[in-house]
Amino acid sequence: MIQGSAGIVKTQYYHHPSLLVLESGESLSSPTFAFETYGKLNHDRSNAILVCHALSGDAHVAGFHECDEKPGWWDTVIGPGKALDTDRYFVICSNVIGGCKGSTGPSSTNPETGKPYGAKFPVITIQDMVNAQKLLIGHLDISQLYAVVGGSMGGMQALQWTVSYPDAMKKAVVIAATGYSTPQQIAFNEVGRKAIISDPDWNNGNYYGKALPSHGLALARMVGHITYLSNESMHEKFGRALQGKDRIGFDFSTDFKVESYLHHQGDTFTKRFDANSYLFITKAIDYFDLTRDGSLATGLPV
Amino acid sequence: MIQGSAGIVKTQYYHHPSLLVLESGESLSSPTFAFETYGKLNHDRSNAILVCHALSGDAHVAGFHECDEKPGWWDTVIGPGKALDTDRYFVICSNVIGGCKGSTGPSSTNPETGKPYGAKFPVITIQDMVNAQKLLIGHLDISQLYAVVGGSMGGMQALQWTVSYPDAMKKAVVIAATGYSTPQQIAFNEVGRKAIISDPDWNNGNYYGKALPSHGLALARMVGHITYLSNESMHEKFGRALQGKDRIGFDFSTDFKVESYLHHQGDTFTKRFDANSYLFITKAIDYFDLTRDGSLATGLPV
Repeated sequence: MIQGSAGIVKTQYYHHPSLLVLESGESLSSPTFAFETYGKLNHDRSNAILVCHALSGDAHVAGFHECDEKPGWWDTVIGPGKALDTDRYFVICSNVIGGCKGSTGPSSTNPETGKPYGAKFPVITIQDMVNAQKLLIGHLDISQLYAVVGGSMGGMQALQWTVSYPDAMKKAVVIAATGYSTPQQIAFNEVGRKAIISDPDWNNGNYYGKALPSHGLALARMVGHITYLSNESMHEKFGRALQGKDRIGFDFSTDFKVESYLHHQGDTFTKRFDANSYLFITKAIDYFDLTRDGSLATGLPV
Repeated sequence: MIQGSAGIVKTQYYHHPSLLVLESGESLSSPTFAFETYGKLNHDRSNAILVCHALSGDAHVAGFHECDEKPGWWDTVIGPGKALDTDRYFVICSNVIGGCKGSTGPSSTNPETGKPYGAKFPVITIQDMVNAQKLLIGHLDISQLYAVVGGSMGGMQALQWTVSYPDAMKKAVVIAATGYSTPQQIAFNEVGRKAIISDPDWNNGNYYGKALPSHGLALARMVGHITYLSNESMHEKFGRALQGKDRIGFDFSTDFKVESYLHHQGDTFTKRFDANSYLFITKAIDYFDLTRDGSLATGLPV
């Protein structure tokens, strides 16, 4: 079997014709769900795998968009002959609600005002994201998924599926996820949010078409990227290596490779992600707690 | 033996009459070193212990300033009958250069311009801090310290003393410190610095007498405080307990106790610490590397 590419794909959009009622009690009217599919649905519609993305991901998980040189974010795993074999499975990935890659989120137009929701977007949860995915799966006329797969926040969604819709799925593949967000995770997320809302360009969330809160969003991403690497892997990847110099500069230019790495991660992120989506999605992560009992979550190191 | 207080103390100032040449090659002319002492120097001047403070510390390590209700930052350890027994030892603590509590730092007046140094303060190192302490010890006519004691950045200074002035000390007590800053430490420090310089009120370091870069400094302190607690201790201290509410708010008000804790730490810090000192002192920490060899530092988890 040759491991191949899922080929040229296009993002599709499902405009849900009615309300999506949220955990908060609020609702989104006629939300849009951006999604992509790879492979073919079989006759009894039993070979569908839903892939759930992490904080900064999107629906474009594999293959290529026309004219793009870079494949989807998990192309190494999805395609003909790959781990999620599109010769056998029908793979679906959708952008989470609250996101900024085609599904309804803070940068979408609020039908009530004709302007972007901004900070007036309702607070969403992992459960809400999963409920949106369930509507999409229904639209695709699939009554039971073969599997739900995801890492990090995607893993939280996969876990949530097992609790919310156990009959609508067979298997869950949960990678690098947790049954509840720990206080340390909440702390790092709050630093990121505080960085964004402290940026004067955030302007209470009303920055669309104006200067973006890029300083704040870059800082949030820098903090995130520290948590994505272990202490050990940072030693291996960077050590105390200097960036483009033979000795420390005795000034505030970039001295160390690790600093340069973080600056790069922060800067590039601001070009592809919406700061308000960062606020709402991290809040959804903080709220995630399948134990539904604060006392259970206390004192259990993860 | 009764464990008592070091009593009422005053910060003293030593105005060094000549240059302090720095590792960078630059120098500080006639720097001031703020210090405090507790207990009595014995006849052969052999019972002196130097205590070195951490990032945000100062010279006021024990006893009380007149009219103050709060004792020095390590009063539990220093005093009559305490671990560093002032009935037996003469304890000295001085504010590091680059600091903002009496020793020459970025908020001090630059004799060349008559204005605060601000960002034009020279970049300093842990070695420079120790060299300043050595001058102070010389001024006090002490040729050999009984011990040098410190935690965190104070421990770095104690280690540096063992390398720079092994004959001028007998013992080192090194607490929660490292022989070199790891890339993860550098990464967290760089996030803090970036938060400060991204604050429009930082104004290239020229903010004295104007609005202070409090948002940036508070963010830096929030990041710092996450690193001062382990994942396990955050579970014990906060868990997922809510702050002043029975259920999550579904908004961006403070939900969790851990968030409230970080906000408080950030806010109070801005009232007592100078943002430029934070920049310079964290840079000194980043530069600290007793191995003096980047390759040695690579791949060694700490």
